Amino acid sequence: MKVYKGTFKVEWAHCDAAGIVFYPQFYTLFDQATERLFSANALSYAELARDFDSPGMPLVETGTKYANASKLGDTLAVESWVESWDGKTFVVKHKLTHADGRPALEGFERRVWIKRDATRPAGFRAIEVPETVRARFSD
Amino acid sequence: MKVYKGTFKVEWAHCDAAGIVFYPQFYTLFDQATERLFSANALSYAELARDFDSPGMPLVETGTKYANASKLGDTLAVESWVESWDGKTFVVKHKLTHADGRPALEGFERRVWIKRDATRPAGFRAIEVPETVRARFSD
Amino acid sequence: MKVYKGTFKVEWAHCDAAGIVFYPQFYTLFDQATERLFSANALSYAELARDFDSPGMPLVETGTKYANASKLGDTLAVESWVESWDGKTFVVKHKLTHADGRPALEGFERRVWIKRDATRPAGFRAIEVPETVRARFSD
Amino acid sequence: MKVYKGTFKVEWAHCDAAGIVFYPQFYTLFDQATERLFSANALSYAELARDFDSPGMPLVETGTKYANASKLGDTLAVESWVESWDGKTFVVKHKLTHADGRPALEGFERRVWIKRDATRPAGFRAIEVPETVRARFSD
Repeated sequence: MKVYKGTFKVEWAHCDAAGIVFYPQFYTLFDQATERLFSANALSYAELARDFDSPGMPLVETGTKYANASKLGDTLAVESWVESWDGKTFVVKHKLTHADGRPALEGFERRVWIKRDATRPAGFRAIEVPETVRARFSD
Repeated sequence: MKVYKGTFKVEWAHCDAAGIVFYPQFYTLFDQATERLFSANALSYAELARDFDSPGMPLVETGTKYANASKLGDTLAVESWVESWDGKTFVVKHKLTHADGRPALEGFERRVWIKRDATRPAGFRAIEVPETVRARFSD
Repeated sequence: MKVYKGTFKVEWAHCDAAGIVFYPQFYTLFDQATERLFSANALSYAELARDFDSPGMPLVETGTKYANASKLGDTLAVESWVESWDGKTFVVKHKLTHADGRPALEGFERRVWIKRDATRPAGFRAIEVPETVRARFSD
Repeated sequence: MKVYKGTFKVEWAHCDAAGIVFYPQFYTLFDQATERLFSANALSYAELARDFDSPGMPLVETGTKYANASKLGDTLAVESWVESWDGKTFVVKHKLTHADGRPALEGFERRVWIKRDATRPAGFRAIEVPETVRARFSD
């Protein structure tokens, strides 16, 4: 299974008045981690458009459980992977861990695979995730 | 039950490259709606500090289910309320609805009630939500 | 001269670890104030596209001078107006004032008036601001 | 002269409805670049507090000139350095360049050097930038 591994250094720009990460920032990080995971598998937004006639990967559900606060100056390990392929939708999991091994938080995004369709009001329709896409995330 | 009711006009500043709200923006909106709901009940952050020796309301879990996309120029109705008081934690629900009645999304935040405690590494400890706080949200 | 007048309540979502507004938030506010000023004059993004074949109003320069810090809980008065029309560009000024009359900050955005042009790499070209647009901002 | 050099990959999270970077995001980037430049010279926020009794580096002025749009997928080179030390204030310059050498934008932040002072309403006062600080940015 392909896993995106990165580092998240908690900077001034991420923190709220309590000196910890303002929680919506973690969802921004999830969005970036998903983009990086997919880009690493030849599924950048430009490639989604060119190779799959797809304008993006809309969300149907997101959620996070927070374990230990992330403070200004902390360095967190980020791991993101596709947890499941479920027909037209799929789940990306994100796990952040403190440098000392304590869990920081775990979250997920359920996204839809779509294809442009000018006959629909939204301009696209959901389709099964192509096998060629799923295959890229296996080892 | 006290309900915060507001309006969210989707502006350029909220939108992503697909011309719809970038999903972390909804969590920022949740945070603001919670602050407004609590402030309307004499629980602004200044009042939390002064009257309850509390430095904030940390998150333990958040989540959202998205129903219909919110596009640039859309006007959404926002409703937020405390769904449940559960000892030391409580859940705030947020519901956004399109002008034509279609649901946009529903989300929640589970937060902890805390009190400053200099003997703890975090500087605070969780306590039961005071009865006087809960009472403010009843009609 | 048409002036957008609004209120900016400093909320938890805007603040940094020092408990004051994280300065990029003011630029987000400027973008929103410009959109509101133009929308009030029948120049929303939908109207720009429909009536002027314009995909937006790109920035060429922005800047701000900060006078007095804006803290969590402060309420600021916002005033925004078109300061000058300069051929293909124009300047929007933004002035924020504390409730007690002290200045908070003053900023500006210089933007370009554009029109779609499929022959250009960017997909648009700059043109003189139409007289019919400028006229909407006079009294 | 010490220069922070980094890379800014334009991701979905940075882009507006025109598919280019929403301009306030560049100021967030400036804030991060300044923090990285100072941290690389033993002036992280934790070190500012511990070694200089300083709670941060407030802004007095910021500004940017935009040359060429930054689109989803672009990779920009970032360079940041202290342009001048001016008594109690100093200027950090930020320069972003496209991969093909075209300028993207240039901006600056003028910040104040401060020290905690419980006798002041703001809780701090401006002082001359210490010589030991300035010296760290020379080669």
